[in-house]
Amino acid sequence: MRMSRLHAPTLRAAPTDAEAVSHRLMLQAGLIRQSASGTYTWLHLGLRAMHKVAAVVREEMDRAGAQEILMPIIQPAELWRESGRWLDYGAELFRLRDRHSREFALGPTHEEIITDLVRGEVRSYRQLPLCLYQINLKFRDEIRPRFGVMRSREFMMKDAYSFDCDEDGLTRSYERMYEAYGRIFARLGLDARPALADSGAIGGSGTHEFVVASDAGEVTTVSCGECGYFANLEQAEVSDRGHGGAGGGEGDAIGHSAGGNRPGGGTGPNLVSTPGMHTVREVTDFLGVAPAALIKTLLVTTPDGRHAAALVRGDHGLATAKLARALGVAGVELADAAAVEKITGAAVGFAGPVGLRDVIVVADHAVTAMGEAVTGANQDDAHLTGVRPGRDFSWDQVADIREVQAGDRCPECGRPLSIGRGIEVGQVFRLGTKYSAAFGASFTDETGAIRPMVMGCYGIGISRTVAAIVEQYHDKDGIVWPLTAAPYEVGVVPVNDRDTEQERVATMIYEQLRDAGVEVVLDDRGERAGVKFKDADLLGWPLRVTVGARTLADGFVELRERATGGKRLVSVETAVAEAAAFVRRA
Amino acid sequence: MRMSRLHAPTLRAAPTDAEAVSHRLMLQAGLIRQSASGTYTWLHLGLRAMHKVAAVVREEMDRAGAQEILMPIIQPAELWRESGRWLDYGAELFRLRDRHSREFALGPTHEEIITDLVRGEVRSYRQLPLCLYQINLKFRDEIRPRFGVMRSREFMMKDAYSFDCDEDGLTRSYERMYEAYGRIFARLGLDARPALADSGAIGGSGTHEFVVASDAGEVTTVSCGECGYFANLEQAEVSDRGHGGAGGGEGDAIGHSAGGNRPGGGTGPNLVSTPGMHTVREVTDFLGVAPAALIKTLLVTTPDGRHAAALVRGDHGLATAKLARALGVAGVELADAAAVEKITGAAVGFAGPVGLRDVIVVADHAVTAMGEAVTGANQDDAHLTGVRPGRDFSWDQVADIREVQAGDRCPECGRPLSIGRGIEVGQVFRLGTKYSAAFGASFTDETGAIRPMVMGCYGIGISRTVAAIVEQYHDKDGIVWPLTAAPYEVGVVPVNDRDTEQERVATMIYEQLRDAGVEVVLDDRGERAGVKFKDADLLGWPLRVTVGARTLADGFVELRERATGGKRLVSVETAVAEAAAFVRRA
Repeated sequence: MRMSRLHAPTLRAAPTDAEAVSHRLMLQAGLIRQSASGTYTWLHLGLRAMHKVAAVVREEMDRAGAQEILMPIIQPAELWRESGRWLDYGAELFRLRDRHSREFALGPTHEEIITDLVRGEVRSYRQLPLCLYQINLKFRDEIRPRFGVMRSREFMMKDAYSFDCDEDGLTRSYERMYEAYGRIFARLGLDARPALADSGAIGGSGTHEFVVASDAGEVTTVSCGECGYFANLEQAEVSDRGHGGAGGGEGDAIGHSAGGNRPGGGTGPNLVSTPGMHTVREVTDFLGVAPAALIKTLLVTTPDGRHAAALVRGDHGLATAKLARALGVAGVELADAAAVEKITGAAVGFAGPVGLRDVIVVADHAVTAMGEAVTGANQDDAHLTGVRPGRDFSWDQVADIREVQAGDRCPECGRPLSIGRGIEVGQVFRLGTKYSAAFGASFTDETGAIRPMVMGCYGIGISRTVAAIVEQYHDKDGIVWPLTAAPYEVGVVPVNDRDTEQERVATMIYEQLRDAGVEVVLDDRGERAGVKFKDADLLGWPLRVTVGARTLADGFVELRERATGGKRLVSVETAVAEAAAFVRRA
Repeated sequence: MRMSRLHAPTLRAAPTDAEAVSHRLMLQAGLIRQSASGTYTWLHLGLRAMHKVAAVVREEMDRAGAQEILMPIIQPAELWRESGRWLDYGAELFRLRDRHSREFALGPTHEEIITDLVRGEVRSYRQLPLCLYQINLKFRDEIRPRFGVMRSREFMMKDAYSFDCDEDGLTRSYERMYEAYGRIFARLGLDARPALADSGAIGGSGTHEFVVASDAGEVTTVSCGECGYFANLEQAEVSDRGHGGAGGGEGDAIGHSAGGNRPGGGTGPNLVSTPGMHTVREVTDFLGVAPAALIKTLLVTTPDGRHAAALVRGDHGLATAKLARALGVAGVELADAAAVEKITGAAVGFAGPVGLRDVIVVADHAVTAMGEAVTGANQDDAHLTGVRPGRDFSWDQVADIREVQAGDRCPECGRPLSIGRGIEVGQVFRLGTKYSAAFGASFTDETGAIRPMVMGCYGIGISRTVAAIVEQYHDKDGIVWPLTAAPYEVGVVPVNDRDTEQERVATMIYEQLRDAGVEVVLDDRGERAGVKFKDADLLGWPLRVTVGARTLADGFVELRERATGGKRLVSVETAVAEAAAFVRRA
């Protein structure tokens, strides 16, 4: 490709509204352009990188025995009703009606479609195991699209679905995918670690997310430097349940109440006036106690419209995914102010467990281990002190519902844990029989019995993976593409485009590389050398071949590796072979 | 790929509800499965064929200098309002709202998105010409999806858009695409002929559709066996304007009126009672005249809600696309009964031009050349006889608005024309400045003047092309894939799967072919030879390698070409080289 013809509109200045470095660089290097909020056009170079990623994914899926298909994007609402997700999925599901007023969803994921397909095609254990996948656009109406293609409303995804006779079969399918994911991310040069992840109410165990460490990521991870334990914060288990962890969180806004130990005393709850004090810090500063002596009471709403109260210590954060799991629902949201007032009889900020009625109360282990505590009083502008868990209030359930904090002990080895951030590029998921049972996707086993298939699903965010690669591979000058994802592998740059000898040699090297199957661009634009070098760095060709007057006089050109900055002179005669060898080593 | 693992659910019996042979075979061979009305899952073999077609398209687009990008499917309504098509596009446009109630369309085509993109990136004539394309899913809410993937609501399309400085540049871009299309369809073995096509109100000239002759097609074509003139019926020009053509169409239902010459006489319109007679045949039989002595008056509605009356002779069909062109609108629809009654004061079937008010009247050339004629009377159950065009009624416009009929004279050479049917697999289109002017997609030319870019657009229905290939390449036993589109190139079939020597040789040939880069399947299923042969024919592998006991005893296997049925024996040692050579010749 000649750069004079290449449509790669680079920007001189970095876009100021891009928060993540990958977003900024993808705009600046002309890989993507925004169309509407959360939707993007992939320009030529961006699409080439995405195709490279997709090709690696495809190869490894095929090698793992999965077969590629392509499922429709517009999905009948009936199928989503059959799975129960027409309601459960909420506002993230794009919905539309056709000309006959029939309802459809734009597929955010394809469990319904694939289970509907397979129930029509598979009858016998002889047809199992089966693993089908597609690489297709997905749609989610994100409440807050951000970071460019990292969290967009329309994105490219690989989703695979496995069908097995039993749990053992699922384990084998799951492991095959887990291993394929390892190979995929390794080939793409991505340091993606499998984190224990939350499986929500969908059930199953051993679900993993593949996470690339990055501050631009939206996943919070918990890791142990000692034994390698690595988990999503939503999933990470608290091992020292009755104990405090490292404290902190004193400035947290609190959901619906705050309280603090009454120093001394022990004669049951006392009402104290706390006018206008809504946060842990406000209440604890006023009462002169530590946040760890408070019980926060957070009221939540489940997808079916019921309410629950979660009790966690004042210095702890509520892990909503764990709470949802404890309640056996797909997810929970904080209750709105009207619901809080209706349940507690008080404004938001003053909820407490004493005298609370008509809601399920779930207490964190650490709460049940507390002595006297402060809680909201279920009255405006008031708290209770001297409240004793078990004496002054009870609970329906004790569970691990708080977030792990930095310094908490590792559930595997007991050493202190660290908190980090990362980008989720893939997830492997044990579905079990949730969809097959709902859809009647059954098979006849060896004994003639009819049983539901046991399913797994396995996603990779293809477009997000491109962004993750840019997050991991860049420097101050631009993108540093790994060879396996580079839109072009080599850039040939004649220093002075008016020097016919430079042009001749550069064109010759370009054409020979192209004919040898190397993906190469020739910067034949009438630009100054500085502009061409800057663009080559920004666009991130793994290897640059510089054809300049000084070295050419001696019969040499310069090879420069983008990743290391390492340069060496090679003779014009060997330049093509050397460049091709560099590319082949990938 | 081993067939024991291949998910290609073939059907024993042909599905009875599939009208087109490609639809039936694609279901029967397990290439596709319907999900909802007009939406399909592409199973593994179908998707492989589609990928093959897409790869050929991609190669030829790249060779023609176009650059691949990927545009969003969900498109903001504002852009469609900017082009005026939010209203014009009608019910075929899938519309939806996001969580903020903003309106979007699901892209049926991408002129709006690409013009919006390019106006932001291109400023100077130095950046032109530019040609961008994508291969992406498209959405059209067809009123009647049919013939499987031939006319579906979600389909794969290649759409390219060219941007030039002027009409000459557009002509060069157009010709480059026209030639690329020729190469694409030739490589795919498709006999696709470029037909002069209707460009609607979008304007421009020299628009062509690429049409594969097929009774399953939905395009009616007009061709001259003598000089090669080939056009879409909607576009085909009537050369003998005042003359009758070959007659016919006497049984046609007529839109809003029918009439017939009054034998003898000549003293102006006479009212005759024609109770309940709505069709040309009913009226002409009753009055004892020829259909060619009638004037049909068809009332139509334009996209902006206005009405027009079209006058064509009783034996002629109205060409709505030509009428729309004459009126300068994007399209017309027959007016509904209420509108007809309001305009004519009579029920549908009795409209006539005499005394018609408040509508534009467009008369076909043949009507203006008539002597005395019969027309509707604009009264229930009545017609007028002895009506003389020009004396008893006038018109606002004379135009060629009738359909060409078989036997009409060729506009190029005057010989008789034939009518046929075909599948439109591609279209090349001169857009001109319609979108660039509306969107302000302008550039600065050499003189410093600011001018709108001149655009073209170029589509290929990728999924429809797969169906067209099956339409053209099949026999009673199944699909006969051309090598360039075959999901797999070679099938290796051991006759008896319990014969270990057959299995060993078949597996060896399979593995060696696979390692040589040939796309090959091994039929390792525990099925009878007859079933395997039947499936190989149905699935249409271009070459079958049969490993049977009788020939194997002499060291031979059989190569059978699906297309010709031609068989020959080759030694086990040379089988791989022979099969590979067969594949390479494509």
